[in-house]
Amino acid sequence: MAFRVGVVGVGPVGDRILRVLKERDFSIEGAPVVMATRERVEMLADEEVLVRKVAPELFEGLDVVFFAGREGAKGASVEWGRVATDAGAWVIDNGGDFRMTPGYALIVPEVNMDAVSEENRHICSPNCSTIQMVVAINPLHRAAGVKRIVVSTYQAVSGWGQRAMEEFEHQVSRYAAGEPVEFDPSVFAKPIAFDCLPHIGSFKDGLYTSEELKMVYETRKIMEEPEMAITATAVRVPVVIGHAESVNVEFERPLSRHEALEILRDPEQSPGVTVIDDPQELQYPTQADCLADEHKDAVLVGRVREDPSVEHGLNLWCVSDNLRKGAATNTVQIAEGLIERDLLA
Amino acid sequence: MAFRVGVVGVGPVGDRILRVLKERDFSIEGAPVVMATRERVEMLADEEVLVRKVAPELFEGLDVVFFAGREGAKGASVEWGRVATDAGAWVIDNGGDFRMTPGYALIVPEVNMDAVSEENRHICSPNCSTIQMVVAINPLHRAAGVKRIVVSTYQAVSGWGQRAMEEFEHQVSRYAAGEPVEFDPSVFAKPIAFDCLPHIGSFKDGLYTSEELKMVYETRKIMEEPEMAITATAVRVPVVIGHAESVNVEFERPLSRHEALEILRDPEQSPGVTVIDDPQELQYPTQADCLADEHKDAVLVGRVREDPSVEHGLNLWCVSDNLRKGAATNTVQIAEGLIERDLLA
Repeated sequence: MAFRVGVVGVGPVGDRILRVLKERDFSIEGAPVVMATRERVEMLADEEVLVRKVAPELFEGLDVVFFAGREGAKGASVEWGRVATDAGAWVIDNGGDFRMTPGYALIVPEVNMDAVSEENRHICSPNCSTIQMVVAINPLHRAAGVKRIVVSTYQAVSGWGQRAMEEFEHQVSRYAAGEPVEFDPSVFAKPIAFDCLPHIGSFKDGLYTSEELKMVYETRKIMEEPEMAITATAVRVPVVIGHAESVNVEFERPLSRHEALEILRDPEQSPGVTVIDDPQELQYPTQADCLADEHKDAVLVGRVREDPSVEHGLNLWCVSDNLRKGAATNTVQIAEGLIERDLLA
Repeated sequence: MAFRVGVVGVGPVGDRILRVLKERDFSIEGAPVVMATRERVEMLADEEVLVRKVAPELFEGLDVVFFAGREGAKGASVEWGRVATDAGAWVIDNGGDFRMTPGYALIVPEVNMDAVSEENRHICSPNCSTIQMVVAINPLHRAAGVKRIVVSTYQAVSGWGQRAMEEFEHQVSRYAAGEPVEFDPSVFAKPIAFDCLPHIGSFKDGLYTSEELKMVYETRKIMEEPEMAITATAVRVPVVIGHAESVNVEFERPLSRHEALEILRDPEQSPGVTVIDDPQELQYPTQADCLADEHKDAVLVGRVREDPSVEHGLNLWCVSDNLRKGAATNTVQIAEGLIERDLLA
């Protein structure tokens, strides 16, 4: 069986969605209907693609529509999500607009695919930094019960989209040429080449950023643990692609490094996780690793250490491609989950 | 009164020691005696300086000798520290060799200048990442009692010395020129331009790095809290100068954001601290800020937030110039402390 697929948004995530659909041989009837704010031809997933101006009639007959979403601004799914579901399609939305809205499923397939329901065909894919943490932590939570998480992130500029990647390259070339710093404050508030900015999104309750609060609230929703104690500090670093996270976890029950690694290395217990943890041999994940073909859709975990500063504590370091598992791959996996459950069509 | 001053080591920290001595009008008799492994003329602190090959007779008559130290390898103070003290000088040692040795004072002047004793004239200056955390945390500890610290660092390449700065520039220029990555594994284990490496120093007990363990053990020694619960993850980031730290603190007693900021803004209670914390106005410290003349010797603190994930929790972000307050400035401040106490000479 083949499905009629739409993709709304053609930034780095839209590009990755088309790429991942191809790589995973997602069964598509005809070509995907690719939409954006204006009509043009664009190189996407290494092909020239006709991008159409988004319009209600383009949703007719589609089985599933991926919304690439974008950080910060309201995403296209606010205007077009309902049009898509009214036309009978499932919506899989990488944007941030409906994730915390009651009645909207927020899905990381490795964790809570069962939370999907036919009642609301608009499914949300979480924030990039949340996805990778949840994939790494959930198996350990099932084994030993998370009591509290303290996470600090090291997030790539591409999380902000295509313009941010160009802005970063521009800053780096000027630096390399010995020219004065020049930056566009509408992308990052301060220059990002060769600096770390503890500021992703906007400042909200308690002076946490929206990005930090997403890690708290989305994690609780996905893991169905509404009271889970989590605190986050989200930091933009001068890296193009790949988010890293320093995660400190306090568990309810004892969990040794050895036990944690056994769980994380078991694909049954820890789907989507790849362990790289033999530090003496320089085996630990970095953002560069998630660009390798073998790791591009994985959540890489390493530097697992028992933390003697608290009872049942553990530190770990996790890395993932924010545009793929942190966004595009997760949305395609959700669609695959719908197919497995005979829900798509 | 003027003092006869020696400086051993002419990397970035040696340069900064000479610079800080000049800037602070440290009263020097004649010119400082600058020593390294071989004789040459070098530009240091914007002047041509005759560097002598280190030799016992050069220590004769000196009142104070600064050892710039270096990361990783045994520092010059292992061979020459005793020669200097035997010649009657005070040694102020930025190297890591004696910091944890019983009988050696480990000093952050804002915190524990009183731990200096005439019994052992070889004084140690702590690791860069420890100094800035202790300056920021100690005032809050006195107010509310630290129960536990979880810290993740964002550390500049210059912490490794001159070669690391050159190696980084080399990697960046090749990247900007579109050339393939090339790196010297004897500096950083992996390429550092545009990647974050959770690896500083060597892997030790419990698979923590030496850098992470320094933050635990040195902090306890400086704060005279041998049981203080601390866990650290130390990460090298693609930034030239300036370390940043995401610090989560659990206190014994309540401490609101407002109270913490009041303490940190009070120069009596929080010497060496500069608060930059008005995030809605984009006021938070980044590594670029510590290069500004007004901030170059400060520990910058911002993003102070109450952490509801634990009782009496607080998050903060602190930044400092790792070559200055994290090294050179701290050693010169120790010497100034000796003068105040009439110990120098």
